[in-house]
Amino acid sequence: MNNKSNKVNAAVIIIGNEILSGRTKEINLGCISVWLNRLGVKVEESRIILDIENEIVNCVNELRKKFNYIFTTGGIGPTHDDITAKSVAKAFNLKYEFHKEAFAILEKYYKPGEFNESRQKMAKMPSNARLIINPSSGAPGFIVENVFCLPGIPSILQSMLGNLKNEILGGKPLISKTINLRTVESEIAVPLKVIQEKNDKVEIGSYPFIQAGKVGVAIVLRSEDESKISICNEQVLELITSKKIQIINKG
Amino acid sequence: MNNKSNKVNAAVIIIGNEILSGRTKEINLGCISVWLNRLGVKVEESRIILDIENEIVNCVNELRKKFNYIFTTGGIGPTHDDITAKSVAKAFNLKYEFHKEAFAILEKYYKPGEFNESRQKMAKMPSNARLIINPSSGAPGFIVENVFCLPGIPSILQSMLGNLKNEILGGKPLISKTINLRTVESEIAVPLKVIQEKNDKVEIGSYPFIQAGKVGVAIVLRSEDESKISICNEQVLELITSKKIQIINKG
Repeated sequence: MNNKSNKVNAAVIIIGNEILSGRTKEINLGCISVWLNRLGVKVEESRIILDIENEIVNCVNELRKKFNYIFTTGGIGPTHDDITAKSVAKAFNLKYEFHKEAFAILEKYYKPGEFNESRQKMAKMPSNARLIINPSSGAPGFIVENVFCLPGIPSILQSMLGNLKNEILGGKPLISKTINLRTVESEIAVPLKVIQEKNDKVEIGSYPFIQAGKVGVAIVLRSEDESKISICNEQVLELITSKKIQIINKG
Repeated sequence: MNNKSNKVNAAVIIIGNEILSGRTKEINLGCISVWLNRLGVKVEESRIILDIENEIVNCVNELRKKFNYIFTTGGIGPTHDDITAKSVAKAFNLKYEFHKEAFAILEKYYKPGEFNESRQKMAKMPSNARLIINPSSGAPGFIVENVFCLPGIPSILQSMLGNLKNEILGGKPLISKTINLRTVESEIAVPLKVIQEKNDKVEIGSYPFIQAGKVGVAIVLRSEDESKISICNEQVLELITSKKIQIINKG
């Protein structure tokens, strides 16, 4: 791990042709990000890649050195296109073999006679992987060093995050404050830039939106330091007042 | 470009802290993928990155050599956090300057006196960029070599894709066939693997789903060759019949 400051970061690797083809909508990234954010970990990159062993190996090996935590989603099921466990084993130069505990969990989960060859495949993992317990559907995820491998089905993934809290050593959680305005970005861009320059410990985001046919802009302030957000927020409110802009809501 | 075969590929770079933080749901990738697929271009990677100049420069420079087409989304608006155009100019070692045609379009689009400094910023681009006309909201996107820069707001992005068709030299479109089954993956994983091995020109995907509390599996066959899909499809149907699995629907 390369945690050089008290900032803790993560990357999410989404594995699956079905996301890249547009067939399946990706919703796991946002879920993992929000959950990690509460633990003081900021997701700083995400990659969506094909179910190809080399792609997975290279991506895992590049990112695990760059970020404190890596989360992968998808590819840990029983079919031929589920190659995440095998690929992660290869990335770490570990054996890909039956994990005794995972095997026992799955054997117990299925009725006698139902624990067939393809289900057994879900117990094959990089050697000495630590398990991520799956309260929804039996098949566990796993951890190798700083790489956390989760399934692709959102409801199952979400049910597994709860068991992971103690595995994450986070930094200070990021606090955010949002002000939704009835304006357009170009009305506020110049003074907002000045405010950003004066508040270098606060990240100011400006996000235009169209809602029920009306345009608006969400101003989002993010920082680890609540007092710095307050100071920045005052300056944004002054700008809004001076420009006579309507506030839709704040949060 | 490294188009070594008749396969044409693309990567999508999604630029924006708001996606990585989980604040905003990403829906542009699927839209671009489906659109490109019809033109015979396969999206093979996507990266979601922060609004940081170096990140954008490195990502664009790495991927533009690896893929035939690069699409970026986000960061071409008027505010301080919109740095895509400047970063792409840097990636290509081009000047970042006013684009005459874009300036004229925007000047005409706004009422007299409304074309202020921050709106003018949207006319700054890498020198000699080619414009992508924006029928929704004036501000154009742009093209530098094989890199296509689009906005982040989905409705605007979608309205701009229509003007791009002639810019893309695609290969054979991928054809896909889906069969939704009332089964679980582990029931079919072993024979499906055998079918995959016999049909190396067809990509067989197996995607479990949960719908209205019931589990199912979508089998998706993809290939450039319709006859190869037909042959593979017959084998999948045989498997389904032999296992007495219910077909929910086909498409």
